[in-house]
Parts: sequence; C-alpha cells; structure tokens
Amino acid sequence: MKSSEITVADYLITRLKEIGVDHLFGVPGDFVLGFFNQVLKSDLKYVGTCNELNAAYAADGYARIRGVGAFSSTYGVGELSAINGVAGAFAERVPMVVITGSPSTINFRTRPLLHHTLGDYQIPLRIYEKITAASTELVSAETAPAEIDRVLSVCLSHQQPVYISIPSDVVMMSCQRPQAFLFPPALGSDPDALGEAITEALEMLDKAQKPIVIGDVELIRFKLQQDFAGFLDKTGFPYVTMMLGKSVLSEQHPQFIGLFEGERSREYVRNRVESADCILQLGAVLTDFNTGGFTTNLDDAKTISANIRSVRIKHHYYENVSLHDFILGLTEKLTRRDPATLDIQCAADGCVHRRAELYQPDVPKLLTIKRFFDRMSHFIEDDAIVIAETGVSLFSAAEMLMPEGVTFIGQTFYGSIGYTIGATLGAGMAAQDRQVVLFVGDGSFQVTGQDLSTMIRNHLKPVIFLINNDGYTIERVISDHPYNDLQPWKYHKLVEVFGGGLGLDVRTEGELEEALTKAATADDLVFIEIHTGRLDCPESLRSAGQSMAKTNQLE
Amino acid sequence: MKSSEITVADYLITRLKEIGVDHLFGVPGDFVLGFFNQVLKSDLKYVGTCNELNAAYAADGYARIRGVGAFSSTYGVGELSAINGVAGAFAERVPMVVITGSPSTINFRTRPLLHHTLGDYQIPLRIYEKITAASTELVSAETAPAEIDRVLSVCLSHQQPVYISIPSDVVMMSCQRPQAFLFPPALGSDPDALGEAITEALEMLDKAQKPIVIGDVELIRFKLQQDFAGFLDKTGFPYVTMMLGKSVLSEQHPQFIGLFEGERSREYVRNRVESADCILQLGAVLTDFNTGGFTTNLDDAKTISANIRSVRIKHHYYENVSLHDFILGLTEKLTRRDPATLDIQCAADGCVHRRAELYQPDVPKLLTIKRFFDRMSHFIEDDAIVIAETGVSLFSAAEMLMPEGVTFIGQTFYGSIGYTIGATLGAGMAAQDRQVVLFVGDGSFQVTGQDLSTMIRNHLKPVIFLINNDGYTIERVISDHPYNDLQPWKYHKLVEVFGGGLGLDVRTEGELEEALTKAATADDLVFIEIHTGRLDCPESLRSAGQSMAKTNQLE
Repeated sequence: MKSSEITVADYLITRLKEIGVDHLFGVPGDFVLGFFNQVLKSDLKYVGTCNELNAAYAADGYARIRGVGAFSSTYGVGELSAINGVAGAFAERVPMVVITGSPSTINFRTRPLLHHTLGDYQIPLRIYEKITAASTELVSAETAPAEIDRVLSVCLSHQQPVYISIPSDVVMMSCQRPQAFLFPPALGSDPDALGEAITEALEMLDKAQKPIVIGDVELIRFKLQQDFAGFLDKTGFPYVTMMLGKSVLSEQHPQFIGLFEGERSREYVRNRVESADCILQLGAVLTDFNTGGFTTNLDDAKTISANIRSVRIKHHYYENVSLHDFILGLTEKLTRRDPATLDIQCAADGCVHRRAELYQPDVPKLLTIKRFFDRMSHFIEDDAIVIAETGVSLFSAAEMLMPEGVTFIGQTFYGSIGYTIGATLGAGMAAQDRQVVLFVGDGSFQVTGQDLSTMIRNHLKPVIFLINNDGYTIERVISDHPYNDLQPWKYHKLVEVFGGGLGLDVRTEGELEEALTKAATADDLVFIEIHTGRLDCPESLRSAGQSMAKTNQLE
Repeated sequence: MKSSEITVADYLITRLKEIGVDHLFGVPGDFVLGFFNQVLKSDLKYVGTCNELNAAYAADGYARIRGVGAFSSTYGVGELSAINGVAGAFAERVPMVVITGSPSTINFRTRPLLHHTLGDYQIPLRIYEKITAASTELVSAETAPAEIDRVLSVCLSHQQPVYISIPSDVVMMSCQRPQAFLFPPALGSDPDALGEAITEALEMLDKAQKPIVIGDVELIRFKLQQDFAGFLDKTGFPYVTMMLGKSVLSEQHPQFIGLFEGERSREYVRNRVESADCILQLGAVLTDFNTGGFTTNLDDAKTISANIRSVRIKHHYYENVSLHDFILGLTEKLTRRDPATLDIQCAADGCVHRRAELYQPDVPKLLTIKRFFDRMSHFIEDDAIVIAETGVSLFSAAEMLMPEGVTFIGQTFYGSIGYTIGATLGAGMAAQDRQVVLFVGDGSFQVTGQDLSTMIRNHLKPVIFLINNDGYTIERVISDHPYNDLQPWKYHKLVEVFGGGLGLDVRTEGELEEALTKAATADDLVFIEIHTGRLDCPESLRSAGQSMAKTNQLE
C-alpha cells in the first residue's frame, strides 16, 4: 500500500475519531471481525457489550454526552438485534453511527445460503433505511470514502443515526488517505424570512408584560445551549423546560422556574406559563409525555414557536429560518427587563424539595418514592449525569430540581424500557470523571440488565438505584392485571454473579442512609435495591396512566 | 353484542387456539393491554418474558414442538426489539404469529407525537414485511376476520412468521363469530410433471447398487416425517441427515448412518454418501453449516433433489411437484431391498460414543468437551428435547447419536447466539412432560440469559449445561483477539438471584457425576456450569472457523 493510501476500515476509523467518537461499542461475529481487527490496532477503543441492543443504547448514552456515538456488530443477527435501540435514537434525534460487518460484496449478488442471511442480502439495509437519516453499503474502495463522508455528514446535520454496511472484502481495500473532515455547515436561513420573523417576534416580546420561554429538546440536540444561555442573560426572561428538554441549562439558573407538562405541572408553573401574554417556544417538541398528555393550554395567538428549520408565529409559518439564527437575532435586538417585573418564582419554591432544605431520615420508616427522591436531592452532586428509566424513575426524577451542571438523560419520547442500562454504560464511558447516577425500575432492568456486568468490567463506578416495586408500575396505573407481575429477583445479589461492585438492599429510610454512607466511600460500582410499594408513584405518572388508559379505550 | 358476534381480539384468540397455539408469550405495554385483557379472560395462557427478543425465541422453540407459536408485544419499542427473533424464524421456516398492539387507527393518519412512535406510524409494519410471509394491519371489524384468516393461512402454508397489527380501538370491536378455520390445503402437484419425475427417479433408484438418502430440514418443517419413515420402511435404503435436519427421525433408526456435513463428516459417512451411485435428497437446504462450508462432493449426474415445490434430477428441474407427493409416489413404486446389500453401518459404529458403551469417569480429571458430550449420551433420556446453542454446543451435540425419540433444536442456519434461552422456555412450555436438556455457551448466555428466570417462574425443569470456556470460542477459532473475551460471571449463582432452581459448578469428571446425581433427584430446574478449555471444541467447529476466516479474508 502506498503511503498516500489507507484501508477502507482505517478511513472509517479516522473519520469516527475526527467527529468525536473515541469508543466503539460492539459484539463480535465473523463478518465484522476484519473491521474489529483494524479497530484493535487503532486508538479507537473497543468496548464489548453482552448484546447488540445494549450496544446501541450505549452508543446513544455516549452520544448524549459526547455529541455522537457508534456501535458495530455483525450482519443479520447482530444488527437486527439492535434495531430498537437505533429506532429510539432516530425518534429522539441522537446522532449515532451504526457499522455492520457484512458478507463479501459478491454474495450480495449470488446470495449463497450463508449463516445469518435471509435470502435477499439487502434486507438489513432496507430495514435500516426506515430508521436512519442516511445509509450506505460500501461496495468498492473507489466510492467508500465519499460514501462514508456523506453519511457522517448527514448524521451530524440531522442529528440522527446513520448506517454503514462494510462487506468483509472491502475492509482491507486501499483508498486515498483522507483530508480533514468537512463538518457540515450550520443550517442557514432565508435572510428575508429570518428578518421578518424576528421583527414580528420582537414586537410581540417587547410589548409583553409577562413573557415566558419554553426551552426544550432541540436546544440540546443541536447543541444550542450556550446561545440559549446568552438569550436569557440578555433578556432576563423566565423559562421552563419540558421533560424532553430537562437540564437544557443548569436547573439552578436564576430564571428557571420549573418543569412544564400541562396539567401534570406544579400549579405555579402551569399558571405562570398559561397566563403568559407571550410564549416563546424554542426547540419544543410537543409529544404526549412533554405536554402532559396534550393538556397544555397555550393560546396560539400569543405563541412564537421556533424549531430547527422553521418558525411559527400565531397561525403562520416562516420556513427556512434556523433556530440558531432566530435565537441570535432576538438576543441581539431584545433589551433586558428587570427580572423583578417578570413574575419569576425560582423553580417553584415550596413545591419541590431543594438541596438547601433539611432532610431528616425517619430511621425505621419504610421508604416511599417521594421521600427517596427528596433524599436524592442531597445525594446527587454538582455536574453529575442523572439517568432515569421510563416509568416511576423518569416521572420522579424529572420533577426534581437538579444541582448545578447536572446533565439529565431519559428516553422521554420513545420510552423503550430497558434503555438506561446501556445508556448508563455509554454515558459512563463518555465521562469517566463525573458522578453517574441511574434510577431504574425492576421491570425495565429485567429487559437489559446484563450489561451491568460491562460497567463492572470497564471499572465504571455509577451509583445505580434499582427501584423494586414488584412489577411494571407504569402499566399498573394503566390497567392492573397479572401481566404486570414479574419473577421476583434478588437484584442486589447480581453484583456477586457479575464479579464486582457493591450490592445493597434497602427498605427503610435508615437503611438508605447506611447505604449512601457506604456508597460515598466505595471505590466501585454501587448497586442499591430500593423496595417501595407496588403503586407508589408520583401524581404525574398516575395522570399519564389514566391518559393512556383512555387513549387505548381501557376504561 | 349479539350472540352471533365476538370481539376482534376474541376472534384472533379463537383462531390461535384452533391452529394449535395454547400459550402466548409476551411483554406488556400500553398499546397491547386491551388485547392482553381479552387473553387473560380466555383459555390462551399468557406467559410473560423478560424482553421481547426472548418472547420471539420462545415462540420459535414452542413452534418447533407444537407446529406453530405466537408472541405479542406493544407497538414500536416492543415489536422492534423482537425483530431478530422473527428474522431467525423467517430464515429457518418456523411458523410464528407476531401480534402487535398498536395505537388507534386514526393516529396512523394524523400521526400525533405519541410515545413509542417514529413519525410514519407504518414503519414497524414496513419493517415486518421484510421478514414475514404475510402481514396485516387490522383497520376495521368488517375486514379483520378475513385478514386474520388470510395471514394465518399463509403462516401454515409457508411455515414462516406472519405479522398482525391490532390497533387499540379495533380490539373490542364486534365482528362475526367464526366458523371453523379452513386449514390451507396441502400443496398440490402438476400430475404430468409429478409422474414424469417419479418415473425418471425410479429408474435411477432401481438401477442403483448403492443408493443413499439425505433426509433434511424441510421434512421436519413441513411435517413429513411419517411419510419419510414410510419411504424408508418400504425401501430399506440407508439415510443420513444434515445439521438442519438432525433428528428428522429417531437416530436409533436401523437405516440411519449418521450426520453428513461434507468434509467435516466422519470418514465412513462421507465416503458412503459421496461414493453412492444414486443420491436422493429429500428436503435438503444446502446452507454453509449444512454442507461443511460447501464441501460436499456430490455428483449432480447421480443426484435427485426434491424440495418443497420442485424436484431437480441431474441438471433439469420439475416445477410444481410437491415433496409430499413425490415421496408418496416413490414409496408406492419402489420395491424393498435387502439392507445387507446396501452397505449400511448403523450410525458409524466406533466413531461416536454410544449409550451402550461404557463411560467410566476419571474422577480428578478436568472435563473436556469430548468427554462431557460422551457422558451426555448416557444422561439424555429417550424422547428428550435436546437444544444446542450455536457454537461449541451445536457442533458437539450435532455429532452425538441421540436416543430414541429425541427432538433436536438448534438455530443451525440463521445462527443467532442467545437463541436457545428463549427456545428452551418455549419448548419447555410446549412439552412439560418431556426431559428438556440445553447446552449453551457463556457468550451466548450473556446475550439473553435473563429468561432463565421465566423458566423458574413457570416451574419448568430443564437441565441446563452452561459451557463456560471463557469467551466466544466460535469466534476464537476464526480470529482470536480480545474482543472474544467476556466479563467472567459466576453463572451457577444466577439461580439464587432468580429465585429458584439448583445451581452447580463443575470442573472435573468426578464433579460432573455428583452434579448429574443431584440433577436426577432434583424436582427443580438444574443449572450446571461446566468449565472447559478456551479452545476446546470439536474438529468440525475448528474447520468451520477456518472456513469463515477464509471467507472473510482474515487469514
């Protein structure tokens, strides 16, 4: 090979490193071993997982910290096991590179009955096309570099998963050594539409006595948090987040007033948002969980809603206006208000347990969800990563007021139970110097729990709270029948099977204190099983359950 | 509701019972709870699994015993987690009914941002179309009965998975109570083509001095074993099976001479097959694993190959000739030969350890794969179900000579590791009076092991041998690198976590004897962890590894 050349595998590895991927999650299988052999020789670190679904979830958790993630597995059996993890990233706009090692190119035409195949060799590609923003099968060394660059560019510009199938004969083919990666340019705007939208929005905001900002998920996904912080600094406006946008900025921000989720919101937050005379939505995605089951009562005539490529004001739309340009334009032109005039009660004083308040354990008392999460306000450190599984964990943790610098991770739209085990592995690999705290229920843990062992294997030290409430509580609040029961595991004993970490079993407030004391000094993964009542959950989850029962005609 | 009416859910449940499904595997989620509520009221038994992939594998294992299986889960997150299990059944021709509980029909048009959705609500259906023989979305009570009957009929006639999406508003709609299900008619033949094919085949077989029959997988999948037995009785011909067709008939059959897998076969079997002057293939599917990596050396000019819808003789084809009709036609017309003239050495005497031989444990000696499987010849009972995971387990167990009446289960074409945990659950539920023995490796177990707890929960009593050889040995024989290493679990302690069963740890031949003694008297699931060398495997697997290394250019 000439010095100006490189293998296709190494071209791809080089690009992954350039866009920010330092760890590749994966499961081996013969068709992908050629690619893995090149990974082992590179500075891209391979992290094996127990199964492919968890590899995808790990890449997702990693991407939410690092900006992009990747996993790789073998053709057919491997990649198809990971579909649901990629679908979740597709729905939630998490950029992820899926790399499949495939049979040799000639087999795609001749279709021999090789193991792991399904007749038409393109079936996996055709499936992945449905849940990725771009996909490619690398068929030659001549076209591979441009194809790799194309799909990686789409990954970053769309902030969604992409799929690359690399046949085993293409892995070691030679191609041109790459120039520096051309990152996709920021989304531009039609200057006339942008100017008119800003002028119209300014007029509404300038006139408003009681404006409110809803800062949501697209600000996180498209990495616009600093611009959003600049906007808030300049204007002094109060803001709320929705569930998907939780922790868009530090929840200790003086202008943050809490979580808005329609009729599931705390009373002050709901009143403050719905009584606003101008509502500025920045990057809001109005999903069912984000809107308290579509119960937000917002007057379109008072609403400016900016999304990633368009702005809606009242009942009309501006297309080709980027969220980024719109925020910068408003920031430049708006003048600062005196916060005292804007009706800001920081983060709903008195409604949420705050770190500054006293938490006094009632030693013999059995733990409740409310008391447990109150206690967590004191346990979670500044700059922690807090991960909450769909169900009691998500709905409880979403309502906490997080300490300075906390990043919050939940699969709040797609809502696939089991997501957080892989996501915790991924986030932990991405940020090994931060406290990582996971809240996960028993039903969710049974779906994907084996990769707890991969955290132990990689010497990660998250603190995991397994909330054992004897079944699928999120389903019980919809329709309480025996299909919501589970085989009762002794979850805290799993660390003994998996070969590391500290496992603890907690039923009372006193036992929780003891466990947290041990956790504070443990130089190891800590896995604390918390027992709570079968139907003990926050009101917001109960409300969500009633809403889902109604939607599905189960009443 | 009128007495002549029934809900759509109950229509579907009635049909499932009629075609032979008594157990429905599943995982709950809000969109499917309406259907599950009707299942709970019916005599279709619901069996909850830890995750959806294992539900699909369980339905597959169940189908291989009962003829058809089913599982059900929720829209998006549930069904997409099961894709790989359904793809495996599609590849291996295992009939399975996949039932998804979906959002209400109106949502498919209006596409609200409900949890578990991906924008276009038909994405899951479009994905399932790629890996099922028929699929449907039930959109009204008027069309639901005919649609259900259509896809179930295809499931049985094609012996492949089908997909039914039932929106939550359709579940309780009323439709006509069903008449008896019209089972699809047996595949017919073009009488002229059939007659000509039989005449030509007869001439070759009558003339042959040393004919051999290869009886393979389609005889099992299309339930033609009795016809095949009749053919053997009538003719006296010797037969071999391939890996996919293992245990098509009892391996104690006097005309059975062993497993044919090209150059990986035992010498006598290979010589006997390849030196035959006429080779009759019945239902053979020439996959890589079935043919020893495409190393069968069979002369087309001497070969008659009948598959489910066609017959090939020498180099020409007869279309529209059913395997069933072809076997019956040959059976009728062939005359019996004296077996003494046909060179039959029953199941390769002297090459395979047989039950009748002595097995004497060398108490302190560390176990090897060879000695372990020799010992298993004495442990497996008549009429057992033996399940072997892809890898060391499958390649070893395939070469055993099974006792009378044993059913052998492996995913021998698709080869997705982790398959057998769900399959053992499914087979166990399907045949609660038979001994069920599973051989599974450590790497495979880590993929899907949690549903061991579901076997315990359902009081199943399989004997599970976990072969702990410290990593993915099947990958090590291809390319031995650190991605084949695993976190070392204490597998035998899992039963303590899962709440039942007997867990044992075995390193020596003596310890194996003690464990088998305990297993014999245990009225419980038995889980025996067997430690063997990292590279200890049968020659056939080593050969497969070399072949895969070559195919994937890893040498």
